[in-house]
Parts: sequence; C-alpha cells; structure tokens
Amino acid sequence: MIKVGIIGATGYTGAELVRILSRHPQVELVALTSRSYAGEEMAGVYPALTGSTDLNCEDLTPEEVMDRAEVIFIALPHGHAVPVATRARERGIKVIDLGADWRFRDAGTYEEWYKVPHGNHKLAARAVYGLPEIHREAIRSAGLVANPGCFPTSAILGLAPLLQGGYIDPETIIIDSKTGVSGAGRGAKVTSLFVECNENINPYGVAGHRHTPEIEQELSALAGRAVTVTFTPHLLPISRGILSTMYASLARPATEAELRQVYREFYAGAAFVHLLPPGQWPHTRWVYGSNNCHINLAVDSRTGRVVVASAIDNLTKGASGQAVQNLNLMFGFPETMALAGPGLCP
Amino acid sequence: MIKVGIIGATGYTGAELVRILSRHPQVELVALTSRSYAGEEMAGVYPALTGSTDLNCEDLTPEEVMDRAEVIFIALPHGHAVPVATRARERGIKVIDLGADWRFRDAGTYEEWYKVPHGNHKLAARAVYGLPEIHREAIRSAGLVANPGCFPTSAILGLAPLLQGGYIDPETIIIDSKTGVSGAGRGAKVTSLFVECNENINPYGVAGHRHTPEIEQELSALAGRAVTVTFTPHLLPISRGILSTMYASLARPATEAELRQVYREFYAGAAFVHLLPPGQWPHTRWVYGSNNCHINLAVDSRTGRVVVASAIDNLTKGASGQAVQNLNLMFGFPETMALAGPGLCP
Amino acid sequence: MIKVGIIGATGYTGAELVRILSRHPQVELVALTSRSYAGEEMAGVYPALTGSTDLNCEDLTPEEVMDRAEVIFIALPHGHAVPVATRARERGIKVIDLGADWRFRDAGTYEEWYKVPHGNHKLAARAVYGLPEIHREAIRSAGLVANPGCFPTSAILGLAPLLQGGYIDPETIIIDSKTGVSGAGRGAKVTSLFVECNENINPYGVAGHRHTPEIEQELSALAGRAVTVTFTPHLLPISRGILSTMYASLARPATEAELRQVYREFYAGAAFVHLLPPGQWPHTRWVYGSNNCHINLAVDSRTGRVVVASAIDNLTKGASGQAVQNLNLMFGFPETMALAGPGLCP
Amino acid sequence: MIKVGIIGATGYTGAELVRILSRHPQVELVALTSRSYAGEEMAGVYPALTGSTDLNCEDLTPEEVMDRAEVIFIALPHGHAVPVATRARERGIKVIDLGADWRFRDAGTYEEWYKVPHGNHKLAARAVYGLPEIHREAIRSAGLVANPGCFPTSAILGLAPLLQGGYIDPETIIIDSKTGVSGAGRGAKVTSLFVECNENINPYGVAGHRHTPEIEQELSALAGRAVTVTFTPHLLPISRGILSTMYASLARPATEAELRQVYREFYAGAAFVHLLPPGQWPHTRWVYGSNNCHINLAVDSRTGRVVVASAIDNLTKGASGQAVQNLNLMFGFPETMALAGPGLCP
Repeated sequence: MIKVGIIGATGYTGAELVRILSRHPQVELVALTSRSYAGEEMAGVYPALTGSTDLNCEDLTPEEVMDRAEVIFIALPHGHAVPVATRARERGIKVIDLGADWRFRDAGTYEEWYKVPHGNHKLAARAVYGLPEIHREAIRSAGLVANPGCFPTSAILGLAPLLQGGYIDPETIIIDSKTGVSGAGRGAKVTSLFVECNENINPYGVAGHRHTPEIEQELSALAGRAVTVTFTPHLLPISRGILSTMYASLARPATEAELRQVYREFYAGAAFVHLLPPGQWPHTRWVYGSNNCHINLAVDSRTGRVVVASAIDNLTKGASGQAVQNLNLMFGFPETMALAGPGLCP
Repeated sequence: MIKVGIIGATGYTGAELVRILSRHPQVELVALTSRSYAGEEMAGVYPALTGSTDLNCEDLTPEEVMDRAEVIFIALPHGHAVPVATRARERGIKVIDLGADWRFRDAGTYEEWYKVPHGNHKLAARAVYGLPEIHREAIRSAGLVANPGCFPTSAILGLAPLLQGGYIDPETIIIDSKTGVSGAGRGAKVTSLFVECNENINPYGVAGHRHTPEIEQELSALAGRAVTVTFTPHLLPISRGILSTMYASLARPATEAELRQVYREFYAGAAFVHLLPPGQWPHTRWVYGSNNCHINLAVDSRTGRVVVASAIDNLTKGASGQAVQNLNLMFGFPETMALAGPGLCP
Repeated sequence: MIKVGIIGATGYTGAELVRILSRHPQVELVALTSRSYAGEEMAGVYPALTGSTDLNCEDLTPEEVMDRAEVIFIALPHGHAVPVATRARERGIKVIDLGADWRFRDAGTYEEWYKVPHGNHKLAARAVYGLPEIHREAIRSAGLVANPGCFPTSAILGLAPLLQGGYIDPETIIIDSKTGVSGAGRGAKVTSLFVECNENINPYGVAGHRHTPEIEQELSALAGRAVTVTFTPHLLPISRGILSTMYASLARPATEAELRQVYREFYAGAAFVHLLPPGQWPHTRWVYGSNNCHINLAVDSRTGRVVVASAIDNLTKGASGQAVQNLNLMFGFPETMALAGPGLCP
Repeated sequence: MIKVGIIGATGYTGAELVRILSRHPQVELVALTSRSYAGEEMAGVYPALTGSTDLNCEDLTPEEVMDRAEVIFIALPHGHAVPVATRARERGIKVIDLGADWRFRDAGTYEEWYKVPHGNHKLAARAVYGLPEIHREAIRSAGLVANPGCFPTSAILGLAPLLQGGYIDPETIIIDSKTGVSGAGRGAKVTSLFVECNENINPYGVAGHRHTPEIEQELSALAGRAVTVTFTPHLLPISRGILSTMYASLARPATEAELRQVYREFYAGAAFVHLLPPGQWPHTRWVYGSNNCHINLAVDSRTGRVVVASAIDNLTKGASGQAVQNLNLMFGFPETMALAGPGLCP
C-alpha cells in the first residue's frame, strides 16, 4: 500500500481521482486538501462517494501533505504547481501534476502561451510528459510526471501512428475537437451554467487555445520535425467526453487497410487504446467513465486526405484515469490496476 | 467460478448485466442469447464492451443455454419467462428473472394487470421477490428469484421502514416517480426518440401502471394489512435514474429525528442503502451507474405528512445490479461482489 | 404605441420580456436597465436578439426609467420592488412586478416566508395578483400587478376548477412540481452548472418552499376556506418548462367525464389554457416557448383520488409571457397580442 | 391569401412548416397529407399546435392536393418528389421541394450519390437552388425550387464570400459540421433513441455523406472553378441546430478585418445572415427556432488558414424556414414575412 495525497481534491478531476483510487487495492489515500470545503466530509461534497470514503477535506499546506504521502497528485489551477512540485522533488516525493505547469520541456513555451513566469526551467526540462502510450518507459522511472491535457491526449493518440510513420504531411493537420462541460471545471461561471450550455454547441479559443503548443511539442517529437497545427475546441452539452476529428493530407498514397495496420502495430500492447472495426466511428458514450480511447479512420480518396477520430472521457483518460495509469507505472503496479473495465453504457 | 447464461443479452438490462459480470471474479459468462444480433460480437453491439468481453451473441434455445449454465438470467419481455424458468427449475438450474412474470405470489394479480394467462401459478407462489433488503434470507435459498421492477425497488425501499413500524396511514400513500429513458428499453419507438424526450417531462400510465400491484403486494406484507397506493410515473430526459417522491400522512405524531432513527435501524447492514444527512436530498446523479439507493425524508408539520425521496439507477439497483446482488446471495458470495464502489459522478 | 421600461433586463425573465416585446406591435421599449452589463448592447448580452433590438443596457435609476416610460416591468430579486413600485404608483406609472414582493394581499405572510420586512402593507393589499384566468377583470383596471410565481401559475391553473366547484377535499392536496433550470436564474451558482444538473433530478425546498403560501392564498380564495398544501419542487435537466402533478381526494364521487366538463366551462374563453384530449398527458415540450398551459386529469377509482397534470413554460406563461398578457389587459390590447402561436416543437 | 398544401406534413420538417405558416398572414393551409396519421388532427399528432391549427391529416394523392393548392411543399424521402413535382409543373402549380431530388443541375450527380435513377433530367436542369442569399433573383421567378440541405445551407453561407472573392485556396477546404438529432427525422430508429444520442457525440458518413456534392456544386459556381471538399458531419445531443466549422488556407495574405468587410458587403441586405462581432463565436442556441444564420471567422496567422463558423437551426433556416423564405420570394411577399424575430433563447 502506498500513501497518496491529493492537493486540490474537490474540483472535478480531484473527485474523479478519489472515485478511481477508492477502488485501487494498492493505494491508501492519506490527504485530501481543499480550501473551500475544509472540515467537510469528502462524501458530503460529492455524495456519490457516500460509503466509499470516510476522509475529510482539510486545508493543509503542501508541506503537511508531504509529511503524510509518498506520492502527491496536484490538481490546482496552472501556476500553482511549480513551487509544490519543486519542494516535493527536493524531499524525494513523487509528483503527478494534472495541470499545465510541467507539460513543456521548454518552459519558455509555457511562459509564452500562459503569460506567467514559470520559475523552474531546469526541473521542467526533466519532467516527463505522462502519456503512457508514447512515453511508457520514461514514466516508469520518473519522479515528476506532467499529466497531459485532455485535448492533447485525444489528438496525440489519434495522430501519433501517422506522424511517426511519415504517412501525412505535417503542414496540413487540422484538429477539430468537441468537449463536454466538465472540462471547464466546477467554478461557478455563467458560461458553464446548464441553461447556457444546453441545446448548444459553440467553438471557443479559436486560433489561440493553450493546448495547441502542447499538441505541437509531442507531434513534432513524433514527426522528427516541427509540426504546426490548427486546433479548434468546441463546447457541447455533455458532462464527460472529448471527440477529436482530425484531418491531414496523405504524404504518399495509402489505403485505409494499410493505415489500420499501422495503428494496430503502434498500439500493440496498449491496453486502453482500441482501433474500432471499419466503419464503426467512435462515440464518446462508449468510453464514458472508462480509461479507454477509441479510434477510427478513413481515407477520403477524392481529396487525398485521411480523417481520424478519437474519443476519450476527458475526466478519465483525459485527466485522472491517466494520472492513475501513470501512478501504476511509477510504482510498478499493473498498468490497468483500478482502471480496467468497460465504460458506463448505456 | 460459476457458469452463467443470459437469455436476452442485447437489451439495455442485458448489456448492463454483461458490464457488471465482466468484473465479477466468480462468474464465467457462457452464453449470451439474441435473435436480432445472432452471430455478432457482443462488443460490436455495445462497443463500450470492447476489450471486456470476447463473447458472441447466439440464437440459442433456452435448453441449449441450460446445457452450459448453472444459473440463468432472463431478460425477456413479460410472458416469455414462465416456460423457460419452469423448465430450468425442473433441471435444477437456478433462475433470476428480470421481468414481471414471477413477481406476484398470486399469479392471478399478474393475469389481471398484464392481461395474459400465467401458466404456472404453483411455481409463482414459491418464487422469491428479489429485493434483498426485505427478503435477504429467502433469496439465499431460492431457486427462482423474481427481480423487482425498477419503480417498485425505489418505492418499497423508500417506504418500508415507515410501513413496518406503523408510522404512516396506509390509505394516504402517493408515489410520484420520475424515470430516465433507458427504462423504456432499446426498442425503436417514436416515444423514445431523442427529439421526443429531450427538453421534456411528462406523466404516463396515470392511475394504471403495472408496477402498482407489485408495490402494493410488498407494502401490504410490510404493513400487515392491505395497502392501496396512487402511483404516477414520469419520463424525463436522462438516460439512467429513478427518483421517487413519496407522500403519506403520519399515523401518529413523529419528529424527523425519530423517523431517521427508524430508517437507520431498518437498513443497518444494508450495504447499498444510504440515508443521507438532513437536508441533503437525493440526486439521481449520485447513484449513477452504482447499485446504491439514496434516501432522505422530511416531516411537513404544517400538513402532518412525511415526504420521502429515494434515488436509484434504474438499470443497476433497479434491474441488473440488483440481479447480481441476488446472484451473490444465492451462491454465497459476498453481497457486494462486483457491485461495490461509487457511482459515476461528476 | 406605449412606452415600456424594464428594470433588470439582463436576467432570464428580462431577456424573455425583450424577446416577446420585440414583436409586440403596440410597444416601444425605451429603457433596459442592468448593472452588470451597463453600456453593452442588449444584443451583445443575448446574441439571439441580434437584429431584433438595438437598445443598450443602461445603469439607470428607477426614477430615470419612469421619466421615459408609462409602464415598467420590474425583474429584480425579491425585496427590491417595494420602493420602486411605491414611487411609480405615486407618479401614476403602471407597474408589473415579476418578483414576489406584491403577491400577497397580507404582506405579513410575505414577511413570514421571505424573512424580510415589506415596507408597504397598504399598497400590497391593493395590488392585483396577475393570473388573468382567475383575476382578469381586476387586472384590467389595476395600476400594480403582481405577476405570479412560476410554480403557483401551474398549480393554481391545474386545481382552480376543482376547488371552486368543491370537487376535492382541500385537506388532501399534494403538488409535485418539476422545473427546468432557467427558473434558478442566470446567477453563477455551482448548483446551476451544467454538470451538476445534467443527467439528474432532485427535490429541493421540501416542506418549506416560498411558493407554498402563494399557492395557498389563491386556492383558499377559490375554495372559500383555508387550504393547506404539501408542495415539493424538483429540478430537472431542461432549460424551460414546469410540470405540476397534483393529487387530491374527491369530495364526492365524480367521473372523469364530469370533471372534464368542469374544466371546459371554467376555461371557456381562456385562450392559453387547453384541456388535452383524454389520455394525452401534458408534455413540457408542447408548450416550449409559448404562453400556453396544457392540462389533463384522471380519476384513480381504486383510491378515490383525482390526478391533474399541468404544463407551462416557466419563462413564458410562468413569468414574462404572463406579464405581457397582463400588460395587454391593463392597456386594452387583445389579450393574446404578441403571445399567440404554438410552442417551438419539435 | 395563397392556398398552400404540404405533402408529408407529419415529419419534423412538415410540422415546422405548419408551425411557421400558422402565423403567416398571406397563407391559407389547405392540405396536410400523411399516411401514418390519416384521419387524425394535426394538433393530435403535434399537440404543440393545439389552438393553432384545426386541420386534419389526410391520405391524399398528390393530384388531390394540387386540386386545392396553388403551391405545394414536398417533404418526402428523396426519390418521391420527382413525379409529384413534374406533374405539378405541368399543371402550373409552384413547387418547393425540401428533399434532395431537385438540388442538382446535373441530375447525373444525384444519381451517382443517391444510387437511384432520377427520371427528369430536363426539369432538374431548370430547377432553382433555393438559397436566397445566393440565388434571390432566380428564386423570385422560379416555378420549382429545390430547398437546400441543412448542412449545405450552413456551409455555403459560411464560405461563399471567401470563395467568390478568391480569398481562399479551393483545394484546402475542410468542413466539420455538427447537427442536432432532428436532422435524422421522426423515423423510429435505434440510432435516434434518446439513450443512444444522449451524452454523446460521434462522426458519421465520413468521406461519403450525400450533402458533399451539393456543397461542391454551389461552391464551385461561386469560385468559378471546380471545388472539392472534405465534409464530416457529427451527431450531437441537441434537438435543433447545426454548427459548421470550416477551414481553408488563405490564397493570399489577408487580415481578419479585411475579411470581415468582405462578409459585410456580401451579406448587405440579407436580413437573416449576421456576422457577429469579433471574438463572439456562433452558438446554435442563439438561432434556436429562428431563420437566422450567425457567422464569425478568425485568421490563424500561425498556419495561414482562416477558420469560419456558422450556426443555423436545421429545421428553420436549414429546412422549413428557408422554404417559407423561398415562398415569400416566389409570391412577392416581404422576404421575412412570418420569419422575423429572435430565436428562443434562453
């Protein structure tokens, strides 16, 4: 049993961590921090957890959490994880950060897109980007894992095989993503109100969303050259789920059958990534509440493009489930521990 | 490992059985029957199951299923389970029927409300009504369990402590229930279409729904006298969930605190039933995908009534989860095996 | 053309007023007040109004609005309308208040349930409760109309014919109401977030909701004796709509056919209230965006009760549509002006 | 008053026609045909129309409808409108067809994509594509108008100014569209069930949807050269609404401000098309139930692309509202008659 603390436990990703870890046979939760709900039972804040956890939310300092835990999850707004993770590493405590602070090997990119100084470029250069299907070995030995963003997870998993194999022209990539509202967090904002989101879809952050450079960092590494993408997220009236539809021109003629083989080989051994049968396009409901990623693709022979779609649950594979997957790798547990099993469907 | 067959596996309750049983450490699924999807992979019909089951749907006769299984779940439209269960019992095979055929000790009541002849009154009298919180001991030794209806599960769990203790006037009970659309099944009906259900709520089956006599049978047994109720179901735009709001006049003055104590004692040892803290009213999302039942109550001192609300997931505690709970009891497994854990929330 | 001002124009009921009045041939909108959005175009705050209004939101004092308008709608939180309406009446300006401040003839009841002093009991006694189907004549000559609450509108319209005719026992009334989320307003609250409301239904305000005394005031007047009700609202994942399901014991035996005739006579001449054909139960979608109220009923002969269901759009007949209906009556326009026509369905 | 018949009145587009025309001051509805609902009141099939129409559904032959009407709307599955429209034109009756049968000037393209013989290539060549913002003058004098598809309406309106002005490279166009479920019609299909659509988004018809050649026909005419596009529709859990997000490489450098001016000029005089202010991206809720089309755009200077988004209500501007707009033009009524006014929002 390892002792685990969660800093920022009462946001949606924090609650999802508690949900998953309450079933993890090798984890003992020892600290749930929250400012807003300090002193309340976690099961009072999220009554779905009634009977699954007896823990209270506490307004602990990071130092106090580190006194109890051997690994910490950080689920704080960006900008807050740098000092916490820095100190944790000094104390030899492992860190999985669910925010953006450690996702860039070059912290200058972070500073440019997030408009704040970073504070520890050196450690940023050594953090590991926690997408296990791409960086599994590095994660196993990592002390500080930057859990990927939700959109980047769906986009990178969808495009990685094509870019690594040189099948598409990296200048032609367009990523059109659609996300559920839980991605906006539990903050009380007018734009997240039921009435504002229901019966609606809209684009946002067009030509400037902060997940763009994160996608580009990883795709560039896979392609072995600089990749620039157009990325457009959309908000749709579902609680959980991201679908990314991706377009690129084929670098050389290829059939759908060939490309399917490329995906099968790339994801051999990846327990959570499933290439669906021909013609069965990903539905976000099929991965609802699971750590799975469903992918399919088609060649548009009229235009010489390939169209790829990938679906994940933004709170699970797009955040907390992937974070637990990283934990499993970092501590030598089976990668699917507490994460196996189908989504909740119907 | 026990060998389990599901007759009627591709409806929503059948798929929910597969979802739950795919994680059951003591169950081996040996047969999934379906006419519409015979020959297809179950994971092709419900792609959420991709990676969780390799079974195909087969158009087997009940006899063929019984050749493979030591217990069968029947998830067929009412009227079809009588011959199947009759034969299974002759062969010594245990049966859990998710339909209405065996829910009435007096099959004449069934015939009156369902307008079809029953065919085996004698066996009906010996079947056990599979609501474990009320009939746990009888279920343990039962060969034929009638899994309760979804509305009755929510209503009976909500009212049982009050009726058994004589706290309410049995002539005054009103049950106003609200259900998600999955309760209507996967049949292609106009009334179940997205556009017909979305942004809507409506009552149906007013003063005549077939779950009424089932509720009355169990409440009468608890009260020790005949109970007649007014029951109104409503359809609302959610996939899963039932909320029942129940009203009755107090038979004698009682405080909310006294009544809360009655519930706590009645449900001591019931792992899935949770009386929420004062003022925290049940939300169906809090039991989404779980086998839990959340209950709360208030005394309306201005009118001398008690108001009780209970929430379940209609596919889990209201159908397939409860069926697995019954299986666990019938085979001596821990009652919560494959069913423990929080709902999917947020 | 009459000059109309709206005080509090950027909440949902304010925006619904603008939507309806933008098509009213006898109305000129002259002032839209808002603190949060002062200086912005109304069509910027609610882009659905693009092309339908050129007005800006202004941070005007009530006195400034009265300088421009001959009638004002007040769409402010309760407690704020007393001084505004008091002053307007002094200046001879007509007032339609969409809040609770003027709904009680006895302002003491208001003070008891809303926990604030009222400030003008005398004027409260003379205000007219603006439910045209009950108080049409009084509204025609009123200077100050208290627009009814959304739940009371649905409940009173549903029960009025039975109470006035003495068909039900006034001690047995139970009102189980279900509302869309727009009833909670546009305030940024966690409980109104999409993720908190979606895939959910829950009761709230059990045995204590503030619309209870308002319902009782009007039902008592219709019954000619004190009526006390049990009223339970529920929140469900739709933007617009209220369904009230009502239960009462028959005071004397009556058939459904007789009771249907009572409703037809009571609502003869009421353009917006429709008794649906036998067996066709109200759906909130059928009144979506309209000023209609759909009603149906059944006699539960097993229990001697009548069950009535009524559906309205909470923002239209439950708020702003009814307010315009009152305006039409107060100014001698046809009652249905700018309000006629079907709801938006499918 | 003109006499209007609707052939196929009980599908969603038929009901939407009735909803709109019930408020049209120059239209008398004289025939509503339906096979499934022959003999029933239209307001029984769509109770939202209660009080707005007294018409019955009738199982009339097209010839019988033409005996009564001077213009007919055809809302039938594709393949059925050719003989009806052919005969109507022989009799001098005007026709607005809401299906695909007359949308292609070259009926061979229709035959290739719809896999059925057409039957009247000559008349097809003379039909007018009823997108008023592009073909207003031709529609005024047309006898047979092919009402555009819902996706093509959103895509063509979004891209027309750029293509006509030569601002984008026609080889680089990608159209990612998202539609509500009403676009699938009222047929009872499993894929349109609430539970199958709720909490979900999925692509469908990838690289082969039949609206592709329709979009290409119109874009090619605007560009003055052959245009080939990649078009991917997605199904999302809303009843009404289409959002199209479109991507293309700039043919020459241009600023957002320049391009905005191009749109303003192109749509000068178009009452229903609104370019939103910079940064305010279209939301389908903002056009809900209206005939409006909202558009916005951005230049992605990092990649040299322009991103355009357009939103319509698929049943109104994407079908029946546009059909009435065409009727207005064909009969010399003001183009916005019965169509003006804001959408239903909130």
